[in-house]
Amino acid sequence: MRIDGLTDHACLIVSGPDQKGIVAAMAALVARHEGNIVSLDQHSSDPVGGDFFQRVVFHREGLTSALPAIEADLAETLEPFGMTWTVRDISVPKRMAILASTEDHCLLDLLWRHRRGALPVEIPMVISNHTNAAEDVASFGVPFVHVPSQKGPDKSASEAAILQHLAGKVDFVVLARYMQILSSDFLEKVGVPVINIHHSFLPAFIGANPYQKAKDRGVKLIGATAHYVTEDLDEGPIIEQDVARVTHADSTTELRRRGADVERAVLSRAVLWHSQDRVIRHGNHTIVF
Amino acid sequence: MRIDGLTDHACLIVSGPDQKGIVAAMAALVARHEGNIVSLDQHSSDPVGGDFFQRVVFHREGLTSALPAIEADLAETLEPFGMTWTVRDISVPKRMAILASTEDHCLLDLLWRHRRGALPVEIPMVISNHTNAAEDVASFGVPFVHVPSQKGPDKSASEAAILQHLAGKVDFVVLARYMQILSSDFLEKVGVPVINIHHSFLPAFIGANPYQKAKDRGVKLIGATAHYVTEDLDEGPIIEQDVARVTHADSTTELRRRGADVERAVLSRAVLWHSQDRVIRHGNHTIVF
Amino acid sequence: MRIDGLTDHACLIVSGPDQKGIVAAMAALVARHEGNIVSLDQHSSDPVGGDFFQRVVFHREGLTSALPAIEADLAETLEPFGMTWTVRDISVPKRMAILASTEDHCLLDLLWRHRRGALPVEIPMVISNHTNAAEDVASFGVPFVHVPSQKGPDKSASEAAILQHLAGKVDFVVLARYMQILSSDFLEKVGVPVINIHHSFLPAFIGANPYQKAKDRGVKLIGATAHYVTEDLDEGPIIEQDVARVTHADSTTELRRRGADVERAVLSRAVLWHSQDRVIRHGNHTIVF
Amino acid sequence: MRIDGLTDHACLIVSGPDQKGIVAAMAALVARHEGNIVSLDQHSSDPVGGDFFQRVVFHREGLTSALPAIEADLAETLEPFGMTWTVRDISVPKRMAILASTEDHCLLDLLWRHRRGALPVEIPMVISNHTNAAEDVASFGVPFVHVPSQKGPDKSASEAAILQHLAGKVDFVVLARYMQILSSDFLEKVGVPVINIHHSFLPAFIGANPYQKAKDRGVKLIGATAHYVTEDLDEGPIIEQDVARVTHADSTTELRRRGADVERAVLSRAVLWHSQDRVIRHGNHTIVF
Repeated sequence: MRIDGLTDHACLIVSGPDQKGIVAAMAALVARHEGNIVSLDQHSSDPVGGDFFQRVVFHREGLTSALPAIEADLAETLEPFGMTWTVRDISVPKRMAILASTEDHCLLDLLWRHRRGALPVEIPMVISNHTNAAEDVASFGVPFVHVPSQKGPDKSASEAAILQHLAGKVDFVVLARYMQILSSDFLEKVGVPVINIHHSFLPAFIGANPYQKAKDRGVKLIGATAHYVTEDLDEGPIIEQDVARVTHADSTTELRRRGADVERAVLSRAVLWHSQDRVIRHGNHTIVF
Repeated sequence: MRIDGLTDHACLIVSGPDQKGIVAAMAALVARHEGNIVSLDQHSSDPVGGDFFQRVVFHREGLTSALPAIEADLAETLEPFGMTWTVRDISVPKRMAILASTEDHCLLDLLWRHRRGALPVEIPMVISNHTNAAEDVASFGVPFVHVPSQKGPDKSASEAAILQHLAGKVDFVVLARYMQILSSDFLEKVGVPVINIHHSFLPAFIGANPYQKAKDRGVKLIGATAHYVTEDLDEGPIIEQDVARVTHADSTTELRRRGADVERAVLSRAVLWHSQDRVIRHGNHTIVF
Repeated sequence: MRIDGLTDHACLIVSGPDQKGIVAAMAALVARHEGNIVSLDQHSSDPVGGDFFQRVVFHREGLTSALPAIEADLAETLEPFGMTWTVRDISVPKRMAILASTEDHCLLDLLWRHRRGALPVEIPMVISNHTNAAEDVASFGVPFVHVPSQKGPDKSASEAAILQHLAGKVDFVVLARYMQILSSDFLEKVGVPVINIHHSFLPAFIGANPYQKAKDRGVKLIGATAHYVTEDLDEGPIIEQDVARVTHADSTTELRRRGADVERAVLSRAVLWHSQDRVIRHGNHTIVF
Repeated sequence: MRIDGLTDHACLIVSGPDQKGIVAAMAALVARHEGNIVSLDQHSSDPVGGDFFQRVVFHREGLTSALPAIEADLAETLEPFGMTWTVRDISVPKRMAILASTEDHCLLDLLWRHRRGALPVEIPMVISNHTNAAEDVASFGVPFVHVPSQKGPDKSASEAAILQHLAGKVDFVVLARYMQILSSDFLEKVGVPVINIHHSFLPAFIGANPYQKAKDRGVKLIGATAHYVTEDLDEGPIIEQDVARVTHADSTTELRRRGADVERAVLSRAVLWHSQDRVIRHGNHTIVF
């Protein structure tokens, strides 16, 4: 499968210590491989002694056959600068697994957007610890896998089952209101980025029941946060956030209803940007180009 | 001084245990005193066994002379219901003192709005622990009082000085980025509501340097919160909040610059609503009509 | 079917020339029929000589059997004031038909919200001039009716077919990106409110291709507008509007993709409010309580 | 006067037909003049046969003495590509004249931001056709010039007076709610960009009294638009827009009050971006980097 309109387009991500001449070196490299730069974004964490981040999309007729030479040249050219780089044919969609529980609004929203052609990914599977969404997922032509949660604190068997399903088949994982906490062992073994949607405006209301906490505190805006998952619960690098206005008249149930709209909007943007290689992790921060 | 267009308008706030017939009793009372209800808002914290809150604005020709009889009737009518009430001639502006420090954006914004006729208050004084804003405040025709901060943890002398300036002259106090923490002793003695603007989206980033904390956490939205001050720092009832979008490219300085716009917008709305008797405190929550 | 939690709740809408004593008369009426007012909103278009609008929700044990007496009393009580009124058992869901074309994002969003219990309506049918959504609609258990568009300017036969399907079965109609213009003859015969979603921030970009027009004009925000349909295209009373930020980098296709999210959010709010009797038409305006 | 932190920083704007190798040529040029690229934004109006726009900020020790050689090199390097370019020492603030009338909220907001160091410009003068703001403007240390409006349709004498004041002293002009329509003759003679704030969400409500028109149409959001002034009233390239939510309960006066906050926020962002060379005109559009 190729993404329409992106044939022969590559995305090059470069990061490392900021220094003179990087842009020139990179642009000359693209030019000598007959590439045409279509878009270019860059960021320095600090003008002096900071880190440099760049995302370049270039068009190159016959990209597939040209990529090996481009990669070799990148290694040679960027090494003296101490830069890290990746280059990828962006007409090849990333493979995204979705993990879900009973709440299906984020899950279905992603499936719908995908079907409309609004998410440039493949979805090899949806894994849930419940079965209520099985029929809906199937109606989108996406394989549904049921991995029940383990009772008790030890989740190693169910996590192992999930890992086995994912192994070699996905480029990133999305937790679409998946209500199980993943162990650091799982995160290490899964080996691909994991994106979560938390139903509050982090760092406010970390942990369980954020809408109840929001009601108890009497906030006038509720929010949602999409972030990469790390071992520290709700502490990973934030990709996107948004809020909705509420009033004293809104019950906790109403906060949940409104929040559901914010959650799916925020998660869909984070997933879109990640699938387009627009998000670069930098410590506990993200750069979103 | 009277507020244009509000002559002979009263605002009646009623609260207490919800029960049948309250609205009818209150509306009949207004009608038998020849009042015409101009606006009416109500809220029940819970349809069953909850608390009832109502704000009624009514027009009554010759309000001043009618008020004593209305008040007597209110006492008699609402007593059986166990309700609390206040009634006020809203053409009489509330008296608002502003406390400020070196940062002047919130202070000047309030003074400008007041001069434009957009805040129905009187401003008997601005008190600051710095002198930089003295000339600006004077140019608005508002008395400026300098009460320097005390060194050390004991603030009782400077707080006593402030209390003496305020005594009997104000109906509420606004902390317009006033950078001193007020003691619970002060709050008890001042005897009027105190509104603060905190430069974060509470409960995120409580305490000092919220913009630095926001930068460190990598949030994608920054915010500001106007709340009533209680003994618990940054924990009082929230009146209003808002946010602004930021990106990885924004420095902490830029967050401060953008945040300043959110702060003054949020504070001005909270002050406006308080001055119009639109905000009712209910435990650690507010009802904003 | 009854809506959970709303059994024995009635919604009373009163409108007419503003005058003293209306609130008292209405509240006394509710009280003497043993109703308990749960929420009350009112608005005067002008404090002097304006129009008065009120929405009251009250709880009354055994509402169904009490309603005839309440209605008779309303007729007698409000007649002297020259007021118009309706009273309705709000635990009975309104019946909503959806008309759609090929674009399915608004249609599916409504169906999905309905399934989640977030829209208190019944959906007796979806009518489309295309068949692409037939299977999706069926999967929600909602009858799908295909009424092809007539070629040429005369739409009377297809409109007649639609009217026949709707006759007696619906309380309002939603045009969920239905791309046919309905004749004034249709609007007259259908006899129930018709809500449309227009894919621009009205009154900007009336008519066809608003996203292309938005791109051509170079706006920095795109929007969507839900409104009641009148004979004048895109000129009916506005119920709700919202916007999303765009930049020079967004293509018309991207505007459409982003706009789709705004459209479905705005339409779903308008439909929710209408279904809750929160929207009152007043000439070419709406009052939204 | 120099802007803190921007010493030795240049902003290079390049635009023209998109083609391979432009970025490499430009980056190599900066590198061979020992510049370090600090930020880089680019945009293509169309990946195939479109127009290319680039904004590069680079640091170069001893910029002032290096600029002539850089400019000569730019002419030689970019000529083969048919590109247009400008390069500017961005530590030198642009000179901004403000034209105002009686409404002072936009005027004072700009002056206050400037005083806080939040607008990197010099303000050589404020010109008004009224005198009410004279004292306030003076308090900011900015020269105030009164040029009364001419009665009747011929404005040539007053426009000539304004032109004489501006001649050679300003880099751009801001109309801060200046209520006179400037002739195309004036726009031609002034020879610098003119930015206007229109008090509606263009293209809705072009011309006079937009808040009254907004009230009459019953919109649920009001807006403001900052744009470059062209001969066609309210039709120039849009720089920035924003909106605020309103309800049926807001009078036209209230729309004006709320709108004033949107106007000053939108105008201040447009002015900031223009002063930082972030806005590029492209026909009737703007690219905002």
